[in-house]
Amino acid sequence: MSLHLYYGPGACSFIPHVALRLIEQRTGQPFEATMVRMHKGEHRQEAFLRINPNGQVPALVDDGQTVTQIVAIISHLARRFPQAGLLPQEVWARTRALETLAWFNNTVHPTFTRIFMPSRIVADEAAQAVVRTEAVGAYRALMAQVQERVQALGDAFLDGAEAGPCDAYALTTTRWATMGGIDVATEMPALWTYVERVAAQPAVAATIAAEGLTLNMFKKSS
Amino acid sequence: MSLHLYYGPGACSFIPHVALRLIEQRTGQPFEATMVRMHKGEHRQEAFLRINPNGQVPALVDDGQTVTQIVAIISHLARRFPQAGLLPQEVWARTRALETLAWFNNTVHPTFTRIFMPSRIVADEAAQAVVRTEAVGAYRALMAQVQERVQALGDAFLDGAEAGPCDAYALTTTRWATMGGIDVATEMPALWTYVERVAAQPAVAATIAAEGLTLNMFKKSS
Repeated sequence: MSLHLYYGPGACSFIPHVALRLIEQRTGQPFEATMVRMHKGEHRQEAFLRINPNGQVPALVDDGQTVTQIVAIISHLARRFPQAGLLPQEVWARTRALETLAWFNNTVHPTFTRIFMPSRIVADEAAQAVVRTEAVGAYRALMAQVQERVQALGDAFLDGAEAGPCDAYALTTTRWATMGGIDVATEMPALWTYVERVAAQPAVAATIAAEGLTLNMFKKSS
Repeated sequence: MSLHLYYGPGACSFIPHVALRLIEQRTGQPFEATMVRMHKGEHRQEAFLRINPNGQVPALVDDGQTVTQIVAIISHLARRFPQAGLLPQEVWARTRALETLAWFNNTVHPTFTRIFMPSRIVADEAAQAVVRTEAVGAYRALMAQVQERVQALGDAFLDGAEAGPCDAYALTTTRWATMGGIDVATEMPALWTYVERVAAQPAVAATIAAEGLTLNMFKKSS
């Protein structure tokens, strides 16, 4: 069996990247990871389009077949490696994990796209600035929802006793908030404390190092 | 066991609505369905917020517990009723079905939101018109991708020999295209022929009747 992830540093490919590291730690199954330099347009070059015709990361190649979409990749890996415990086996707990992953995927992520790539929404540059500003407000409200949820966790994680895919998604989207000009550490300290706890988990820390990420990207001037 | 779906007519709740009908037909397990009149703001009233604090449809209440999110609801029902065949049991086929559901959910649906509710993106009405117009172009391109995929199916469906959740999502999003001013029947006849085939499948036809839907909402004046 061979597993090969194509990722962009700090992109939502971070979630399957952490999942693969957890599988490696828990089962010994290794994986390869290749960075796609999206700022250099590598995702639109033929070599990558042969792997994923949509030109998006993440793309997981499992024994020669490509899987895209976070929720599909995590479910796929959970079925391939049930002993790694990526998703709970119990029906209701698994449903709650998928519900959380889907919400980050269809609600939080598209809101960040309006901050990070407003050119995908409107062509006019002045209109892009308006789209971006209003999206920052919406994103802040979503982060407040995440904070409310993680505050109830105590010393646990969204995925249970150890951090998993839902926690990796929460970390990634919170880091995006700091890139979008939200001072999370000051405005939402409970969320930030949680994110730092997630970042300290071995599989997450190793993935942050592998992708070369700075956790807090907030700059006062932005 | 009791299953109760809260739906908006023609909303993405159509996908679990079809799934519940398939379960009923294939296993005899009945369900209840309650329409939420969103144009009357019922989704923001206390009675519904007690069921789903997010105020969104679909919400499935399974033995008193609420499940939200299309991908989570379909996965949940597939695990609760494996004999209904909502999702394939084989790992790769199941992964492909989840990949398709996730794509409709995080790519097609948020693009339609920009057409149908541009006020969620920007407050200014002139800016909303720009957002809407550009979103129609993006949505047309996504529908062309769906058409390309369904053209390869022959007499089969996305979900196999019979229509299932992926086909219900394709039908719903194509119907939304006609609401958004895209003349699908004329512009993409192969997609429209496929959607009519899906609509004729017993579980889908019964759900269209139950929700009181007109399949082609395109109006020349729009």
